[in-house]
Amino acid sequence: MTEMKLIFLGTAGAVPTENRGLSSLAIVRGNELLIFDTGEGMQMRFIKSKIGMNKKMKIFITHMHGDHCIGLLGLLQTLSIMGRQKPIDIYGEPNLRKFIMQNIKIINFKLNYRIIIHTVTKEGIIVKEKEYKITCCLAEHSKLNYSFCLEEFNRPGIFYVQKVKNLGVPEGKKYSYLQHGKDIMFKGKKLISTEFTGPPRPGRKIGISGDTRPTSKLEKFFQNCDILVFEATFSDKETEKAKKSYHSTASEAAILAKKSNSKKLILTHFSARYKKIEKMASEAKQFFKNVFIANDLDIISIPYSN
Amino acid sequence: MTEMKLIFLGTAGAVPTENRGLSSLAIVRGNELLIFDTGEGMQMRFIKSKIGMNKKMKIFITHMHGDHCIGLLGLLQTLSIMGRQKPIDIYGEPNLRKFIMQNIKIINFKLNYRIIIHTVTKEGIIVKEKEYKITCCLAEHSKLNYSFCLEEFNRPGIFYVQKVKNLGVPEGKKYSYLQHGKDIMFKGKKLISTEFTGPPRPGRKIGISGDTRPTSKLEKFFQNCDILVFEATFSDKETEKAKKSYHSTASEAAILAKKSNSKKLILTHFSARYKKIEKMASEAKQFFKNVFIANDLDIISIPYSN
Repeated sequence: MTEMKLIFLGTAGAVPTENRGLSSLAIVRGNELLIFDTGEGMQMRFIKSKIGMNKKMKIFITHMHGDHCIGLLGLLQTLSIMGRQKPIDIYGEPNLRKFIMQNIKIINFKLNYRIIIHTVTKEGIIVKEKEYKITCCLAEHSKLNYSFCLEEFNRPGIFYVQKVKNLGVPEGKKYSYLQHGKDIMFKGKKLISTEFTGPPRPGRKIGISGDTRPTSKLEKFFQNCDILVFEATFSDKETEKAKKSYHSTASEAAILAKKSNSKKLILTHFSARYKKIEKMASEAKQFFKNVFIANDLDIISIPYSN
Repeated sequence: MTEMKLIFLGTAGAVPTENRGLSSLAIVRGNELLIFDTGEGMQMRFIKSKIGMNKKMKIFITHMHGDHCIGLLGLLQTLSIMGRQKPIDIYGEPNLRKFIMQNIKIINFKLNYRIIIHTVTKEGIIVKEKEYKITCCLAEHSKLNYSFCLEEFNRPGIFYVQKVKNLGVPEGKKYSYLQHGKDIMFKGKKLISTEFTGPPRPGRKIGISGDTRPTSKLEKFFQNCDILVFEATFSDKETEKAKKSYHSTASEAAILAKKSNSKKLILTHFSARYKKIEKMASEAKQFFKNVFIANDLDIISIPYSN
């Protein structure tokens, strides 16, 4: 069972505050680190969080607004200075490549490791690993914004060890076959995998909005998320501002969380105008009970749903 | 008399630590703000320090290494979002213009105010205001680095009001003439300005090194600084590393402070490898007594020397 946790490395929208840095979220999944957005200054909280510099790493940029991407340059440089040698895969819209390559040229910095920039030009699967995939979906913002989902594949069901043992099957390969859905022959009899395992256990699904209006397309995209991290730049009073600037209010995020049948909603990307974010939690809770307000350096563990 | 203070907005070299952000120093002089370097994340400490977003402002970039310039983009953007309308003058080597213009294009941000980018291509005076000038000098770093001096012009000497009053001179223009070095005629007699004023009072001189080896050229450039802010990336043990990477040790900074006849040395830009910076103060104090270790958000007032 792979442990997974979210670490918030920046929860302010557009402008940082005394306590909130610009957008960044790290998902630590087993030995791998997946970073979504790299707002300016996220490397300081990355260092504070002691995540570690040498993990297998992928970075995803939702969109090319400064408060979501500028910190990438410093992060890459710091990882290099600190001795990283493993490559990093970076995903984002076409301007991301320009941003990285032109700045590397102008600021003239060298990296001790390889970066592989994956230009995202359409929706769908952008990463497929053994245990999970990452998909993207177009959001509705003032700039091209991709929302992301991390979806684990189903794990095999519970293995009824005792039942197999009782038949005298010796431990080893045969156990593994049965556990992973393969029927085997034992003493001339066919043992059917499904008779020795419970139903497949669903993987976890995490959704990350980036900056966007709530849309019915995103409702579908985020269907059944265990955790939905959604932007809540504005409070209800500023609904018109939210519309004009292609952002969401806390209530709008909550309605979307409900409609998408998500289990838990984490709000982030708060406008610097709000001193007390608790009010936004109350607004959201009118529509969706399981709301959490993200603060910088919060760590949220993600258990399996069963 | 114009108040002047330094506010350190970032005191780490190359890589930030839990407590130190990347290089930036603000000098608040009366109603004007002069910023030297804009390392990533400096805007967060700028906000924390409550300097104010709307002052007359000049920004100087010593060199185009990421840890000294990346934060400029976020600062400019935040000032615009927060409603600034006054122009900002920005000074640095030719790549600075590329850095700003290309990123504005790629990240596609709009500023509500004008920026005037002054490309520095030679040493000497780059700013001349009524009360002060700013000069630059080539340093010795792995990248083109300009060190800067802020030098106030001499102020008129103390005005002996009573002496003038005793002669029956009416208050007004004539007082001002005498005070500012102009002789006047009064009741058919010539009154010589210097007889009614003390000797001119020297302005203050602040030196800022950027990243550099200590050089005899900088010794001259920083001659008689009231405050010399000098990089001390390394401790004595790493003298060889300092040489190789074109940085300075605390001791080297102290020797230069002594040779330049500076009054106070403030060390900054410490390598993230050092947990305790006090050791570097001790090293420096062997050569120069008046040493101060800069920490993020430290505020240093600068009195007139007489």
